[in-house]
Amino acid sequence: MIIETPTHYFLVSGASEGFTPLNAFDGALLSAGIGDTNLVKMSSIVPPRCQLISPVPLPPGALVPTAYASISSDISGEIISSAVAVALPKEPHYPGLIMEYSGRGTKVDIEETVRRMALEGMKLRMRETKDLISIAVEHKVQKVGATLAAVVLWDRDEIG
Amino acid sequence: MIIETPTHYFLVSGASEGFTPLNAFDGALLSAGIGDTNLVKMSSIVPPRCQLISPVPLPPGALVPTAYASISSDISGEIISSAVAVALPKEPHYPGLIMEYSGRGTKVDIEETVRRMALEGMKLRMRETKDLISIAVEHKVQKVGATLAAVVLWDRDEIG
Amino acid sequence: MIIETPTHYFLVSGASEGFTPLNAFDGALLSAGIGDTNLVKMSSIVPPRCQLISPVPLPPGALVPTAYASISSDISGEIISSAVAVALPKEPHYPGLIMEYSGRGTKVDIEETVRRMALEGMKLRMRETKDLISIAVEHKVQKVGATLAAVVLWDRDEIG
Repeated sequence: MIIETPTHYFLVSGASEGFTPLNAFDGALLSAGIGDTNLVKMSSIVPPRCQLISPVPLPPGALVPTAYASISSDISGEIISSAVAVALPKEPHYPGLIMEYSGRGTKVDIEETVRRMALEGMKLRMRETKDLISIAVEHKVQKVGATLAAVVLWDRDEIG
Repeated sequence: MIIETPTHYFLVSGASEGFTPLNAFDGALLSAGIGDTNLVKMSSIVPPRCQLISPVPLPPGALVPTAYASISSDISGEIISSAVAVALPKEPHYPGLIMEYSGRGTKVDIEETVRRMALEGMKLRMRETKDLISIAVEHKVQKVGATLAAVVLWDRDEIG
Repeated sequence: MIIETPTHYFLVSGASEGFTPLNAFDGALLSAGIGDTNLVKMSSIVPPRCQLISPVPLPPGALVPTAYASISSDISGEIISSAVAVALPKEPHYPGLIMEYSGRGTKVDIEETVRRMALEGMKLRMRETKDLISIAVEHKVQKVGATLAAVVLWDRDEIG
């Protein structure tokens, strides 16, 4: 295989102000605990039998396959939110589905949408959902703000 | 090498409606036969001597280097199309070039454009083109639709 | 680890006109010397003790983790620029930080901004900066132009 298939995953979220939108995004990564890694964005599947764990520290500079939603804004007072959801199938030999969503609006609204998105994706696959997990974060912009929600894929050898 | 260089590749395309633009994109991936994988987007070269194959099933959740074009729309009645083209050089020790293009318009128009883009890219490299292959798909949007065309890079160990 | 952590890195930049925005981007990659590779975009850390080298030829078609800024424009006469900066910490066991920035404007302005972005990111981490390096490029658009600045991560086995 070109790139190894991950065996573990965890969910994180964060928010930050910053000097520029990219700095705010960087701050959101730091506040989510994944700020000193190299995220490699991917679309958006939990491999079969991949195990949910609590967030673990990642080696600095590691290349980390991640499905994430993020948004930045420079409109003072605006509420921005990011969320990810993971729908896990009844049959453990099937993969799970990750959905990402960001937008203006509250954490509650954005999280509800991303959860529906994940359920819709499972319906399209005609797979029954056993568990639906999600994480979301909101931020009220002061000058330049960003939010991020992520599903980080990782492997067992890296977990102490 | 950080990531292994792929040895085989194949072309796919798909289209779908969905609950949101991301759901429609997810549906397009499923209709293209690569919906349960983790696409890692890359720019856009076929390694020398990389072999064209027919689409093969990918392991669920695998991380798959892919060059792709996609577009979504929520304008009812709009025609959207995605296409990819691969220009292969006369000299087999040179790499091939992938181009991606999406837009409003018919499959015929979008595919013609992407083929010209690939030929232009070869001209810029002053390499003669031996073969030019492409794939395209169009979709008439009902509520929220998406199209996708992709060149999937893969390796021989995964092919039965 | 899913993907190996790079041990070396180098900075490049380029600019080009092209048949379409993607062709101009492709031309900018070629002018930067990384045009026949598969860039895998990542966010944006130099692993601890990763060594700065002069640009080396990359194997054609290789999958190359890269942090980059790029911009394209079809407004004749417009000046567009791209820049990347790397801030390296005093303590060698900490990672360095990469920032990317593109926009309308001169190379001098865009490079100044990206350098401040990198310094701000180090401040946020409460790390002292030992070195700050950057690269930038500007281009005056004729018909369709693009600029690119990139930090390419690579590993020692590939360096002759």
